[in-house]
Amino acid sequence: VSTATAVRFRDLLSQRASIGPAARLASGVQTPLYDFSGGRPDPAGYPYAALIEATARVMEAEGADALTYGDPLGYAGLRDLVCQKYRLYEGLDVRRDNVIVANGSGHALSLAISSFVDVGDALICEAPTFGGTLNAIRRHGADILDVPVDDDGIDTGAVQRRLEALAREGRRCKLIYTQVNFHNPAGPTMSLRRRKRLIELAQAHETLILEDDAYGDLRFEGDPLPSLYALDDGACVIRAGTLSKILGPGVRLGWLCAPEPMIPFLQGFNFSGGVSPFASRVAVYFLRDHMTEHVAMLSELYRSKRDAMLRGLAALLQGTDATVSRPEGGFFLWLKLPAGTDCSKLAQLAEAASVRYVPGAVCYPNGGGDEYIRLAFSYEPAERCEAGGRLLAAAIRAARA
Amino acid sequence: VSTATAVRFRDLLSQRASIGPAARLASGVQTPLYDFSGGRPDPAGYPYAALIEATARVMEAEGADALTYGDPLGYAGLRDLVCQKYRLYEGLDVRRDNVIVANGSGHALSLAISSFVDVGDALICEAPTFGGTLNAIRRHGADILDVPVDDDGIDTGAVQRRLEALAREGRRCKLIYTQVNFHNPAGPTMSLRRRKRLIELAQAHETLILEDDAYGDLRFEGDPLPSLYALDDGACVIRAGTLSKILGPGVRLGWLCAPEPMIPFLQGFNFSGGVSPFASRVAVYFLRDHMTEHVAMLSELYRSKRDAMLRGLAALLQGTDATVSRPEGGFFLWLKLPAGTDCSKLAQLAEAASVRYVPGAVCYPNGGGDEYIRLAFSYEPAERCEAGGRLLAAAIRAARA
Repeated sequence: VSTATAVRFRDLLSQRASIGPAARLASGVQTPLYDFSGGRPDPAGYPYAALIEATARVMEAEGADALTYGDPLGYAGLRDLVCQKYRLYEGLDVRRDNVIVANGSGHALSLAISSFVDVGDALICEAPTFGGTLNAIRRHGADILDVPVDDDGIDTGAVQRRLEALAREGRRCKLIYTQVNFHNPAGPTMSLRRRKRLIELAQAHETLILEDDAYGDLRFEGDPLPSLYALDDGACVIRAGTLSKILGPGVRLGWLCAPEPMIPFLQGFNFSGGVSPFASRVAVYFLRDHMTEHVAMLSELYRSKRDAMLRGLAALLQGTDATVSRPEGGFFLWLKLPAGTDCSKLAQLAEAASVRYVPGAVCYPNGGGDEYIRLAFSYEPAERCEAGGRLLAAAIRAARA
Repeated sequence: VSTATAVRFRDLLSQRASIGPAARLASGVQTPLYDFSGGRPDPAGYPYAALIEATARVMEAEGADALTYGDPLGYAGLRDLVCQKYRLYEGLDVRRDNVIVANGSGHALSLAISSFVDVGDALICEAPTFGGTLNAIRRHGADILDVPVDDDGIDTGAVQRRLEALAREGRRCKLIYTQVNFHNPAGPTMSLRRRKRLIELAQAHETLILEDDAYGDLRFEGDPLPSLYALDDGACVIRAGTLSKILGPGVRLGWLCAPEPMIPFLQGFNFSGGVSPFASRVAVYFLRDHMTEHVAMLSELYRSKRDAMLRGLAALLQGTDATVSRPEGGFFLWLKLPAGTDCSKLAQLAEAASVRYVPGAVCYPNGGGDEYIRLAFSYEPAERCEAGGRLLAAAIRAARA
């Protein structure tokens, strides 16, 4: 490379690119024995053979359509499947024209953020929240106003105070980003009262809610509550969903469900010749026939792993002031470390025990969270969730400052 | 929908979203008998059975990796295949670390545009150029400075004048977007002299070149010239490629090849949990074994269709001042209508004859192009390329103002 003539491209970066380069994930890291870090599904739950069979049926029935450009809003069969899924699990009635498909829900969420957020715009977001979305929000240069989460979900009193403070400054909140079911990482499901209150606030302050619900179908117990989208009735909610957790992240299929007039604006940031015509059809041909029993099997699988990990951690909770969430579904436990835990000592001890977790701080938009860790019970088999939980409990006990 | 409370979301749109909603493609339009509009591959060239077989091999060998989250830069096997393809067809030596995968080359190009273009920034672009990229450029709010294309490709004299005018205004050009091989729509392949000159200009004016090469492997005759990326040696060129034309657009796999320090900035706009782990592996498992003969088969297929359409149009060229391109590869003919053609009359006559084409005007960033039409010979079988060419020639002759 003739660096002598290399153009200093950094001088040419856009405002959003100047926020910084993407973090490069460490590669070649040794696989831990107990990996509770990322929200990865259990490989034992993937329908390998059924997807080969679905691929063959796709090629037979509509191979040419699967291999050429697609509808910019996504394969109609997938948008119909999303509608069917909402009807089946939630009694929610949406139409194909409310749904735009994207390459996973991270990409879907970015369509909404790009549509509404300029550098410096105000956005309200839970603390803690999902670190992946936080990266996308940061990339857009948003001014992130955080609000707490408690056992009933987002603190709507704090939301109100944020909105009123913005109004006093003559500013608008562009989006309120929230998770409603089995909050990642904190665990709670937003109460019905809070759901209604959040919508009232958004409507009163003329702002939009970005409702993320990646895990809602993986419910272990309790009854589902109506989504913000269902309660709002087309006024101010954009809802994101995904096949990552009920089929597999590798197909990269997520979507937004939004008021129809918004869809063409969201589509404007989908720079692709139609999202995954091939993968969409393979996914739909499988799920059309197998969704109910597949989701039921997965819910049972993950419930057993949540319980196994809680058993493993039980010793920790006796005799310390540690707390751990018990979510009604999803992939994660949220553990508050005992007072006086030395986080860097814990990191060393956990590494020595081959246990990996996510430090709570990465879930906080504006600092804090050192006293928490997130544990994904989704990936490892149940036995390892329990054994790894025990090892981690011991490490935490040994990591007193 | 309770429109009474609907939030006026248009007041909340970002600057780029305010540019306007995406155009909704007409759906349910009757399929014409002779479709020469979009750059769609011939369905007869898709390897249906081989992709079923590749899917089975992927599931067997690395199913769990295919169905979970992937490397943010894309599947290493695909990035290696891109390197192998460049070596094989062009003698170009790049490393996996220079390659970032995206959901088709449209998405790949958008990563570069997002990384360097803010609303109002200057960007140089050929007139005519590919309408799909033009949409992405417009979405970013660029100030598009157009330059002509002639038989040797981009007019580097015009590029120089644009760059000098910008310098006088104290402005920088952020990107020069250009197509080097079998230009879509105009047809020419950029001469070696022009390639070298374009790089000199970019380096001298400290700007970047975005080199789009979607069709380069589908060469019917003549020898390939070194790419801008190869000639530049890591200074200022970002090169986009795709599997859409040599495998199928439905897998949505494209990439950028760029100087390594730029990659993390480009990655910052890839809002997805790794691009298509499933589709990437299926594509690679097929191409790893079959690329050479598959690309040779396709080149022969498209050459025969180019020739068939040129035969069909031959009558038009005798006795009128119409001209038509004869590209050395790719998917398109570019036809200059005889002086005095009534474009709206031609549109009516072509529709009556069940012939569809792309009006030249959509390829022009800043107006003009009414005297041109683009014809894709890629999709229809050779017989229909010839017959449709004859019908279109008759329609053009009848559409004199």
